[in-house]
Amino acid sequence: MNEFDLIERFFAPLAGPEGLRLKDDTALYSPQTGYDLLLTTDSFVEGVHFPKGMYGADVAERLLRTNLSDIAVKGGAPLGYQLSVSMPSEKMELWIPAFAKGLATTQAEYDFTLWGGDTTGTDGPAVFSVTMVGQVETDRMVRREGASIGDDVWVSGDLGNAMLGCALVTNQVISPAPRGENLFLFETAYWRPEPVFAYRAVLRQFASAAADVSDGILADASHISKLCDGCAVLNFDALPFSLGGESWAEAQKDPIQARQSLASFGDDYGIVFTASPVSRQAIFDAARNAKLKLTLIGSMQKGQGAVCLDVDGQEMAWPQKGYSHL
Amino acid sequence: MNEFDLIERFFAPLAGPEGLRLKDDTALYSPQTGYDLLLTTDSFVEGVHFPKGMYGADVAERLLRTNLSDIAVKGGAPLGYQLSVSMPSEKMELWIPAFAKGLATTQAEYDFTLWGGDTTGTDGPAVFSVTMVGQVETDRMVRREGASIGDDVWVSGDLGNAMLGCALVTNQVISPAPRGENLFLFETAYWRPEPVFAYRAVLRQFASAAADVSDGILADASHISKLCDGCAVLNFDALPFSLGGESWAEAQKDPIQARQSLASFGDDYGIVFTASPVSRQAIFDAARNAKLKLTLIGSMQKGQGAVCLDVDGQEMAWPQKGYSHL
Repeated sequence: MNEFDLIERFFAPLAGPEGLRLKDDTALYSPQTGYDLLLTTDSFVEGVHFPKGMYGADVAERLLRTNLSDIAVKGGAPLGYQLSVSMPSEKMELWIPAFAKGLATTQAEYDFTLWGGDTTGTDGPAVFSVTMVGQVETDRMVRREGASIGDDVWVSGDLGNAMLGCALVTNQVISPAPRGENLFLFETAYWRPEPVFAYRAVLRQFASAAADVSDGILADASHISKLCDGCAVLNFDALPFSLGGESWAEAQKDPIQARQSLASFGDDYGIVFTASPVSRQAIFDAARNAKLKLTLIGSMQKGQGAVCLDVDGQEMAWPQKGYSHL
Repeated sequence: MNEFDLIERFFAPLAGPEGLRLKDDTALYSPQTGYDLLLTTDSFVEGVHFPKGMYGADVAERLLRTNLSDIAVKGGAPLGYQLSVSMPSEKMELWIPAFAKGLATTQAEYDFTLWGGDTTGTDGPAVFSVTMVGQVETDRMVRREGASIGDDVWVSGDLGNAMLGCALVTNQVISPAPRGENLFLFETAYWRPEPVFAYRAVLRQFASAAADVSDGILADASHISKLCDGCAVLNFDALPFSLGGESWAEAQKDPIQARQSLASFGDDYGIVFTASPVSRQAIFDAARNAKLKLTLIGSMQKGQGAVCLDVDGQEMAWPQKGYSHL
């Protein structure tokens, strides 16, 4: 099956009208008035961003969902994406059908389409790159830049399931072994992180700045603090670990260090954001009304970077501030 | 040097306002009214789309120019691009400065900026992926679809220099050896193909359909014919080979087969387009006035695919219809 047959059979059915049936090599999009466009690119290298030999549908879902997360954190909605696939030609015929199935599932769930891309052979590890295009009402993008000294620092959802999921997926021994029901939960957290579209209204109403939780909570918070010449000061005891993460950490020789690992792993794809303390009660109320989990984890203070304080208010030694992709 | 330092030092200076100084992970673009957006993605794998061990600035120029070619062929103008770089981390510090220089040169020449992207490590061959965003006045995109049976088939520029350039770049022996002045010409044709923006007015006024010359003239013409249920019938004697290509072919044991190789190589990044025969004289006139080389090479007829006729009007055997990237 050559490049054109593969595109015709597996990718063309995923294309929206902007993709011109993938018969052209350029997509055509007529912007709606009243909206800005958001563009974000995330690339996955086999063996670096996901383990070798994984099922195509899982890889596809994780690839799209991490890109969707970037759009969600900006307060936007997805429109479509350009997809670059580089993998050994001889593997494509076997692997691409499931990959395309994962793309289709995610597209249907979040209502966006494939616009175009490129498919190339390589004798190295597979590399997938997505450029996702989204839109947000004009001048309403929630940026990384915009926090003020004194702002509260919030995080959505839980931390920790993605690390345990990654351990399971890569056949690492987790001790104590999570119960059966949790296995699926953890693997799902790893393969199918939930983009935070549900938090969109809260974000847009209250957030002064936001980033997704992908590199580790300190690293992600410092993406924000760097842009306001501040230091994100987080309270370790306030960090919202997942039930599974908490019970795993509690059983470790050094539970505190275990929790640090969970928090540093990233990949949970929640949102860390800042907001004025004036809005604190309103944010709690909005979260309760919308049944969203939001936790106040610290504040933006003078200084730089991000630190975590222990229960005595002392800065904790932190083994690894986050994941650098190099 | 980690990922963030690399981005800060070499990529951030290339960013336009849409790129938010690459401090965010999402670009923000406010579309102009009256324009459609064009999006095209081309990926380069080291050892497949360019030889291993090449100078970063050359690779960058070729990467951007092939993407620009797609925008030019649609009658559009470039705005910006998302760039995905995957290469061994330990090579980045040495290689990326020249790569960034090549990006800067091309951006300045064609007036567009970097909007964002992703940088990842890999232990495999380098993979670069560009998603270029361009714009064209609403409903004025020149598509691959739209040719009619009976249309003339035209090609811009010359065929052949890219193949000789690629041979030089990969240290293949070219016999007879091209003269000194041509070496640079050929290498330039390979590394720095000229996007066909100069042909924009002609394309938009006359073309019923267009594709760039990247996979080989027959393959590229058949991209158009496939979408009009026609067959592109080309006249071999009409194909405009470059002077260097012509003199190289003439010295081969089988000059006809040599010309077929030059024509099948693709990568010359001209335009093949169709237009009504009614416009024939107007196109010749427009080309002469604008000092552009346009050659009438055949016509769209009933049938399918693309064929080449010899001087007696017989269909020629054609060794390879074009380049499939798998």
